[in-house]
Order: sequence, then C-alpha cells, then structure tokens
Amino acid sequence: MHKFRNDYCEIAHDVVLKALIDNKDYQFSGYGLDEHSQNAAKLIKDLFKAPSADVHFLVGGTQTNLTFISYVLKDYEAVIAVKSGHINVHETGAIEATGHKVYTVDGVDGKLTASELEKAVKYHCDEHMVKPKLAYISNSTEIGTIYQKEELTSLYNKCHELGLYLFIDGARLACALTSDANNLALDDIAKNCDAFYLGGTKNGLMFGEALVIVNKELQADFRYQIKSKGAMLAKGFISGIQFEAILKDNLYFKIAKSANDMAKILYERLVSLNFDVDPVYTNQLFVTIKKDLAYKLIEAFGCELWKDLGDKLVIRFVTSFNTKAEDIEEVYNYLINIK
Amino acid sequence: MHKFRNDYCEIAHDVVLKALIDNKDYQFSGYGLDEHSQNAAKLIKDLFKAPSADVHFLVGGTQTNLTFISYVLKDYEAVIAVKSGHINVHETGAIEATGHKVYTVDGVDGKLTASELEKAVKYHCDEHMVKPKLAYISNSTEIGTIYQKEELTSLYNKCHELGLYLFIDGARLACALTSDANNLALDDIAKNCDAFYLGGTKNGLMFGEALVIVNKELQADFRYQIKSKGAMLAKGFISGIQFEAILKDNLYFKIAKSANDMAKILYERLVSLNFDVDPVYTNQLFVTIKKDLAYKLIEAFGCELWKDLGDKLVIRFVTSFNTKAEDIEEVYNYLINIK
Amino acid sequence: MHKFRNDYCEIAHDVVLKALIDNKDYQFSGYGLDEHSQNAAKLIKDLFKAPSADVHFLVGGTQTNLTFISYVLKDYEAVIAVKSGHINVHETGAIEATGHKVYTVDGVDGKLTASELEKAVKYHCDEHMVKPKLAYISNSTEIGTIYQKEELTSLYNKCHELGLYLFIDGARLACALTSDANNLALDDIAKNCDAFYLGGTKNGLMFGEALVIVNKELQADFRYQIKSKGAMLAKGFISGIQFEAILKDNLYFKIAKSANDMAKILYERLVSLNFDVDPVYTNQLFVTIKKDLAYKLIEAFGCELWKDLGDKLVIRFVTSFNTKAEDIEEVYNYLINIK
Amino acid sequence: MHKFRNDYCEIAHDVVLKALIDNKDYQFSGYGLDEHSQNAAKLIKDLFKAPSADVHFLVGGTQTNLTFISYVLKDYEAVIAVKSGHINVHETGAIEATGHKVYTVDGVDGKLTASELEKAVKYHCDEHMVKPKLAYISNSTEIGTIYQKEELTSLYNKCHELGLYLFIDGARLACALTSDANNLALDDIAKNCDAFYLGGTKNGLMFGEALVIVNKELQADFRYQIKSKGAMLAKGFISGIQFEAILKDNLYFKIAKSANDMAKILYERLVSLNFDVDPVYTNQLFVTIKKDLAYKLIEAFGCELWKDLGDKLVIRFVTSFNTKAEDIEEVYNYLINIK
Repeated sequence: MHKFRNDYCEIAHDVVLKALIDNKDYQFSGYGLDEHSQNAAKLIKDLFKAPSADVHFLVGGTQTNLTFISYVLKDYEAVIAVKSGHINVHETGAIEATGHKVYTVDGVDGKLTASELEKAVKYHCDEHMVKPKLAYISNSTEIGTIYQKEELTSLYNKCHELGLYLFIDGARLACALTSDANNLALDDIAKNCDAFYLGGTKNGLMFGEALVIVNKELQADFRYQIKSKGAMLAKGFISGIQFEAILKDNLYFKIAKSANDMAKILYERLVSLNFDVDPVYTNQLFVTIKKDLAYKLIEAFGCELWKDLGDKLVIRFVTSFNTKAEDIEEVYNYLINIK
Repeated sequence: MHKFRNDYCEIAHDVVLKALIDNKDYQFSGYGLDEHSQNAAKLIKDLFKAPSADVHFLVGGTQTNLTFISYVLKDYEAVIAVKSGHINVHETGAIEATGHKVYTVDGVDGKLTASELEKAVKYHCDEHMVKPKLAYISNSTEIGTIYQKEELTSLYNKCHELGLYLFIDGARLACALTSDANNLALDDIAKNCDAFYLGGTKNGLMFGEALVIVNKELQADFRYQIKSKGAMLAKGFISGIQFEAILKDNLYFKIAKSANDMAKILYERLVSLNFDVDPVYTNQLFVTIKKDLAYKLIEAFGCELWKDLGDKLVIRFVTSFNTKAEDIEEVYNYLINIK
Repeated sequence: MHKFRNDYCEIAHDVVLKALIDNKDYQFSGYGLDEHSQNAAKLIKDLFKAPSADVHFLVGGTQTNLTFISYVLKDYEAVIAVKSGHINVHETGAIEATGHKVYTVDGVDGKLTASELEKAVKYHCDEHMVKPKLAYISNSTEIGTIYQKEELTSLYNKCHELGLYLFIDGARLACALTSDANNLALDDIAKNCDAFYLGGTKNGLMFGEALVIVNKELQADFRYQIKSKGAMLAKGFISGIQFEAILKDNLYFKIAKSANDMAKILYERLVSLNFDVDPVYTNQLFVTIKKDLAYKLIEAFGCELWKDLGDKLVIRFVTSFNTKAEDIEEVYNYLINIK
Repeated sequence: MHKFRNDYCEIAHDVVLKALIDNKDYQFSGYGLDEHSQNAAKLIKDLFKAPSADVHFLVGGTQTNLTFISYVLKDYEAVIAVKSGHINVHETGAIEATGHKVYTVDGVDGKLTASELEKAVKYHCDEHMVKPKLAYISNSTEIGTIYQKEELTSLYNKCHELGLYLFIDGARLACALTSDANNLALDDIAKNCDAFYLGGTKNGLMFGEALVIVNKELQADFRYQIKSKGAMLAKGFISGIQFEAILKDNLYFKIAKSANDMAKILYERLVSLNFDVDPVYTNQLFVTIKKDLAYKLIEAFGCELWKDLGDKLVIRFVTSFNTKAEDIEEVYNYLINIK
C-alpha cells in the first residue's frame, strides 16, 4: 500500500532520473561550476524575475538553513522564528551549533506576524540581550498553511522598518505556490524577502535545495561559507541537472499541484466519513482521531503521529508527486471496511 | 578529449545508476533507516571484518571529516594532521569552524609518522595549549602515496600509547588498497584505527562516504551529531542503494584498481617520453614540466596546476573508474605530436 | 543618596580590600595555582562538605555559565532552563555562541520543576531534536525567589532518573541560603547538584565566582576549558585572596543576610505605605507602582525598570552588603514627603 | 628572593591599589558605563591621538584576542600570525574555539613581515581554502623583540593593499614603546593598525587590557560581542579606576621603562659573566645555559624553561614594574658564588 509518511520516500521523479541517464557519459566541472548548474540558476532567476540574484544548490534543508543563517548573522545576532519552526524544533540545534540563538514567538496558524516581529525587536533593548537580525519563515509552514500576499508584504515591510532580513524556507515552496489559496506570484516571493529557497528533496528530486539570495549585500563570498560548513557538493552538476529537468515545462509546479490535489481529495473523502480534519492548503493533512484507529492508519499508511491529545491522536498524511488517485481510494476503502 | 581533472567529474558508474532505476518505483524509510542502507552497512562490516562497528552514510568528504572530528573532540582538544592534509588546506577551515585547532606536522611523503605524533603530544605540555586527542591521516594521501602496514600499525600503537584516537580519511581508500604497493588487508584497516571512511564520491558514486566507527566508545548518539551538522540526508536510501550496488561483486575495488592501472600506464608512457614524473602509487600522477607545455596540457586534458616552481610547473593527472586505455593513448599521441 | 540599582555597584567590602593591601608586597604563582586560591578552595569544600569537589575561580557569571555548560554538553546536547533564566535572557546568547540550545520551560515563581523537566525530556524523542542533558537553575532566581529543600531534592532526583546533570547558578547563592525562608543546609546544595557556584561579584568582591564541580565525572581537564574560553585569570591569586577574606568568620553569609534584612525592612516600610510589593525572600524587591512615581524613584534611587504594565510599572530595588538602615529610611522619608 | 617568573606575579602597583581605596565608598554604574571608565578611555584616546577610536576594557589578553578577532572575521575567514604568536601557541585554541583558523607563517625575529603576508594571501586562491582577513602581531613579541616604525608601516601598507585588517596585541606594549630601540611614537601605533590594546595585567594593574578600536568600520555593536563572549565585567568601573591611576603622570610608561632598564642591567651583568644571552629589547631576557645551572636558576629565581636544546636549556627572565636594582644584584651575586 502507498505510504503517506512524507514527501521524500521515493528516489526521484522519472524525468529527473532520465536526465541523469542522458548525461552519464559526459564529464563536468566540479563544485557547481558546470553549465547545467549555471543554466538551472538562470532558469530560476528568470522564473522569479530576480536577474541579480545569486543561486546556490545545496543538498538538504537543515544544511541550507544553517549555512545561510550563520552567514547572515554576526556572533551576537539572533534569528526570529515561530515556536513550531523547523529550525527551532527539528534540526537538532543546528542553528545554535553555529553559535546563534533562535528567538521564538508563538505565531498564528504556524505563521509569523508583523506585530510579533515588532514586539520581539523592542523586547531586545540592549547589549545584555541578543540582537535579532533575521526573520525566518517557511512557506508552506510546518503545519501546511501558507502566507497570503498581504501577510508576506506586511512582514517584509516590517523587517525593513526594523532593520531585519527576511529568509523564506521553501522546502515545500512549490506546494505553497500551487495551493488553491495562494495569491502570491513567483516574483512576489523574490520581491518580498532577502533570500529564499526552492525545495527539491520534497518535490521530486533525489536531493537538492536551490538557495536564491536576492539581496546583493548578502551575496559576496557565499561559496566560502558553503565549503566551510561541509555543504559544497563535489559533483554539483548532479544538482544542476536535476533542477534543469524538474523546472522544464513547469514540471516542478505541476507535480506540486498534483500533490496538493491529492491532499484535497483525501480531505474530502475523510470529511465525507465525518473525520475531524484540519483545513488543508497544501500537501499535508492533519486528522484528529481515536487512538485505536489512529494506530491502525499509522501501521497501514505510514502516517506520522503528530500530537498525543490523550484519548485521541493527531496524525499526519503527506501526499507527494507520486501519490495517485487510487492511493487515496485505498485509504477511503480501508476506512469504510474498518468502520 | 577525456579530462584528467579529478576522479569526480562523471555522474556515476553505470551499475550505480542502474540500481537507482531498478528501485525507482518503491517507497523507503527516510534518514538512512531503510533496508538498503542497513544492508550496505552490513556488507561493509563484513568486508572489513568489523562486526561491532557502526556505519553511517554521509554525503561528502569535508562533511564527514567535520562531523566526525567535532564529535570526537572536546572543546579544547585538537586534531593532528600533516601540513598537506585535506582538513588543513582544502576545507576552508571547516574543522576550525567547529571549534578545533588542526595542529600540523611536516609528515614524510604526505604521511604522518609515529615519531612526529610523539613529539607533537609532548610539545603540548599544559592547559595553556590545546590538548591533542586525535590523529588524522588520509590513505591514499593528498599526494597519492599510501601507508604500509608497518606504518599504520606503528602509528596506531603510538596513538594508544599517547591516548590519541586515529581517524583515516578514506576518500580514496579503494585506490590505496588496490595499489600494487599496498600490503594492508581490509581488516588491517579496521583493526588499526578508531574510525575510517570508504569514499564513494571519488570512486564511482554520485556522492556518499561510508563512515565506519570501529571504536565502540565513539558510537553513541552519532546520528544526533550528523543531524546537528546538517549532514543527515533525507533520502538516505539513495546512499544505501549506491553502496550496495558498488560493493557487489567487488566492483568498488575493481574500478579503483582500474584507475590505478590507468595511472600506471600513463606513468610509463610519460617516462618513455622522458618526462619528470613522481613515483605513482594510486590514481594521482604528478609531472614536473616546463611552463609552456604544462599550460597546454592543462588546457587539453584538464590537469590541475599543483605547484609553481618558477620556470616549471607541477601538474596533476587523476585517473578514474571511467578512464580508458585509449584516453591514455590520446595523451601520449598528443605529446608525441607536440614535441 | 544610596542607589538600589543592583548589588554590584561598589568596589568591594572593606575586608576584601584590606586583604589585597596586606598581600601587596608578595609575589605569587599565576593562573590560580597559588596558595591563596588553594586555601580558598579548601575553605569552600569544607563549608559545603564536598571534599572531593574541584573548585575553580572565574571572573563573572556569564563567563562561568558559558564555560561550564559548554564543557558539560556534547555538540548536539541542550540545557534546560526556565524562560526567565539568566542564560536565556540576559547573556546575549552566550550559551548559544558556544553551540548549544537553551530549551526553555515556563517555570513556577521563577523556578524549574521536576514535572517540567520530565515533560521536556520526553518531548525530545529522537535525533531530529536536540538532546537535553543539563538542567540549569539559579538560587536565588532572577526574581529573587528561592528553592526549598524539597524542591531541590525532587529536581535532582528527577535529573538522575532522566540522565540529566544539574547546575546551580549561585550568583546570589549567599542571599538564598541566608533567607528566612531557606531550609537548605550548605551540604544540601553540594549533595543535590553536579556543580554550583558561589557568587562573589554580587556579594562583596570586586569580581569572582567560585565554581564547585561536585560530580567527579565532570572534573577532568576543566582548566583547559577555562583557558580556551579566555576565562583564565593571569593573576588568579587575586580571586583566591578575595574569597579567603570574605569567607573568614562567615562574613560571606553575614553580609548576604544583612542585604536580605535591609530588603525586608524596605518591604515593611513600603507595605506600611500601602504599596503593592511582591513577597520578598532575598535582596530583590519588586514594586508595582504608578508610572509617575515609578520614574521619580528610578531617578532618585536608581531602581531598575522591570516591566511596563501600561499605566503602571514594576520597578526593582536591590539591596547589597553596603545598604544600611538609614538608606531605607531615606526611601521611606522620600515617599512620605512625595505623597 | 625576587622571582623573575613573569610580569604578573604581584597584585598591583601601589598607585593602583590606592585609587581603589580612594573610591571604595562610592557607587558606580555597571558594565563600564561609569565616569572613570569614560575618563580612562578619553586619556587613552588623547595619548594615542585617536579621537574617534572606541576604547573597551577587557579583563585579560586571551579574552581580548578572542573577542576582537572573532568579531572581525566572518565564518570562513582566518587570521594570520607568526608561528610563535600567542594566539597560535598559548591560548588553548581559543581563536579556533570561536570558529577561525590561525594561519601561521615563520616570521623573522618573532615578527611578521610584509612579504610573508603577501605570500600568505596569494596562497589562499579560492573558496576551498580559508580567506585570510586579519593580520595579528604582538609588540613586543613573544620573544621580546619590537617592531620598528618602518616595519609597522610597511606591514600596515601591505595590509591595505591586500584587504587585510591589522590588530596589535599590546599585552606588553608599554615595554615595547619605552624600549631604547623603539622609534614608534604613540600615534604611530594608532595610525598603523585597525585596533590594538594596551596591556594592564603585565604592567602594574590587577587585571585589564584596554582595547582601542581605531577603524570605525569595526566599532558598531562591539559591546554585544563582549557580552556574548562572557567578557563584560559587571564592575567595569574597577578597570576604569585602574587605568586612570596608572596613566596619570605617565606612570604607565615609567614603570615599563623601569622594567626594561632592569632587564638591561641584568643583561650586562650576565654578559660580564660570559653568559650566552640573546639581545634584549624589552623586559624579557633569554639565556642559553648548561642544564645543571639552568635548573638551579629556575629553582632560585623562578625563571621559565623556554627551550630544551639537549645539553643546554634556554631559560627566560622577566622583569616587572616591581623589579629593583638589588634584585638584579642578587642574581649576580648568586651566579658569582655558584661559579
């Protein structure tokens, strides 16, 4: 049975694998200095209308976060995130390991707000406290919600006002931008942050995140930073080839939309069976469900146990580029049979 | 024309790519907890006769070095390496970035000696100096030389005597162990160090280094360390599948031997033309050559400029799993024509 | 007028200065290896009945916290503290700067509870999250409250159960242990933690904190750690001489009790005038007061503005070894006149 | 007998202690924001004719080095020093502990040269190596030699040319500037570096180094850096009071000159007895001497064993503000008697 554990449990999209096979008899320059990497970078800059951005290909999300955040911050500076933020909870202290505090605020629906930012900066009043310098958000967020255009622009305006940089973790950016609820154009992203990344790992690639540094002040010598963090891939051309392939014919967004669509169908099926499901915006779906049944679904479909509420559990379904309509029906039939 | 720039300029060996294609329709557990990774680990432990070792798959060499070295050392402890050591010269201070000094000694033929170790430890006499706790070596070394069994055992015995750990960077271990000059059995490696790694990137994989932690004192919680350094690959199963494939039928060592053989033929051809070539043990070959011709070879064959001696240059040829006899002849013919 | 800004605004207690003068014509060994430092260490070990402890003299509180905490923790390990903890709020990210996350819980009355510890450890379930390994508390706390014997023992027992170390920041330990509400004997401290420190800076010395490492597992090579953090005082004998002087005839505790007594009198005076004062346990006193008057008191007596409640402010009075009964009367008279 | 172990084995100069006593009944603002600290800073800026410099008082030399160097450097940047440099040898890896490589060159007479700087920068050619950004020198050096004006200016000009900053460790700056061989005016120092410090610990204070940041680009937010490294002294006014006292009537330089003079007399006495003494420029004196006698002098006068040459030892005598002519005669008489 298809597992809904996460969006990174298959090797890669066929198109990506084919691109590797097609290039297997060539030799390339190392460390991302090859033509494929340069071409992929160009494609991304064109898409997001950010001609003067720098694009760097890194291997994974935590690596991208720690490499960029530690590059931006001085020793005594901190990054602001919501409590549920990936860098705060699920990176084993990787940001702190580079020497920087993650200062957290509650957030609303998994999202950081302009007023929280303002309060956070005002709270840090002198040199006996860290100096917040960077705001970190994810789109989509850890709980699958997405930023509306008004939210992102007001956040970025507030960052400017407060002298903060804004960085968008885009591990699931493709799903965010292809959500029915999304009203952000691609260039709205590039215009409303200092840097962001396009996740590949969670959207069809074997690995790879494309970091786009929009703010020119934050571009110099970034390759040194990559190397010093052990994040420079020797065969960088493999990143370039993958991104080239997935970006062609808009495939990157098509497959993300497909994952979203599957999540929506699953949502409808579950609601039709009267399950208690959170509103779904992207490819993550959270169901609150009695313990017995929850554990059965975890067993059968690889759902992740998200929260223990005592008599009930919240479990998570994640759809991916590879989830098909029949996989959803399998869940539906399973539930009908078990009821 | 075939380039001799390095041993990581092709995507991967065909067998590796085939293994990926064969597995493309399956779903796997993430973060290296899948069956392929476990199987690959088992294969490695069997090969090196190290049943109680822990095997972890990391992406690249610098990443493996910094993750392991910083795991072993306490804040005030240092690693000893030869001046030419990769961690000292070519990792953009990645070890220091984790907080630790790389204390260097001259070495002999790129190799660390027991007497240098002893001198280094004695020199550090009190708490006003760092405390050396780990010796780092590469086999093969940065200049392609290899450790003899007597050298390695005397080094490891000295480490024991001095209370040091020994770590072997095996980015090119396969070439070292298949050198004509090698007298180390696989289990000699595992018995004479606390940890080592088998390089994949430079021997036919897309990426991947298999870190083998032999010393049980150094095993606990290492997965936390991996994650905190941003080195935990989400789709870890891709590492496992690759290593499984390359280890099958001894392919890992066969292709390394092939690279060595090609280097040897190239050596003979160059000597037959009266070039000044360093003795060659593995897949790296250093030629001292007049500037004019050196630059032509760099242009034609992608050789790396290694050292500038004024009127002459030292340039490096590297052979790989993909270098063929006709590629060597191409160099030979080029040189005959140009003379 | 006497200022109640804090307990470190005078040079030092007369007895301390006299001891320096008495020793001014001698020469001493550096770096804390002198007889005075050794004698002071002995006095402390005797007082706390901890004969096998190691005592190290450091200069300030943040320095002591960062040097010890980073010594105890491995790269991926975290320290647990209450949100109001000094290491979380007022050390400019000094702990994170050494690479470690400060994981915070709410606390009760500024104090960490055993149940919070348990919940915190259970929450961190795998290698994608930091591993809590150390609990940090202050006695007295940031808001002047103190740990009861039952609280401390239950905390330490829980630490044992959970595999955590317990570290007590004793910047104001003397005031805690001489509080009327205290029921901890000196050796209760040493028996119920792995390490603690006796604050000198806030109790009559020019500078100096005496770190007492009770747990023998945490003792080896600590002097290396001190030096590597820039915390090794060349003229360490000045710390030793000061601690010897202040510990003689129980002066260290007498002056702390005097500060507590002054705070109590101030409390009574303020209550008699119907001010809204928090219960006072040690030498810190928090008054909630209308803005106008608050600013006058800040101006006149150097009180610190603690919290802005809109129409009212919380301001803090701190008494010290040097606060006298007439200083309290000065406040009282000021308030009477102003009403 | 007077010990020549080092220049920091007495509590402090009488004038310094008197200043403390004179101020013992006052209350001061903390953290260096008091009038004495501000006045001392002003005196220093006037002396060195650096009106726009920022002056910060830190406790010790290693602390000052690590706090400033880590402030200046980005993650992947390195500091260049001579092999014998204090930060390379005698700070237990404190610089590396902040994440930065100390790249070393041989030096000449303990001094860094412009040509070595140039070579070092050229050697670091791309992002696979650290990026040198700061040159670190000491004046006087670890072996008591001093920089001539021509040397310092050529070094600083070269730094400008190469895009490096220059930082002078002035732990013994007073002795350097009062050496008979010195030709640097005070403002030559300030004009030929980006930052330097005036050592107090080794020249009559209980503790304290005055860091003078001349380059305005390197001034912002430095107090945050101080705090985050645990280097912010609560009773900062004690630093200010000490520096004020020692700077008054040029005492700071008078006592340094006295130490130099004593070293010169000792040199002459030793030469008159045909000892093999290195040329002496400041307050450190190195004698190469047979083992037997060396150990006797170490025992009698606390000399430090500097180097073991086999049959002979190099031992070090250090004079201080407190060394008197009769102390030298004591050495002389001891040697006459023993011969």
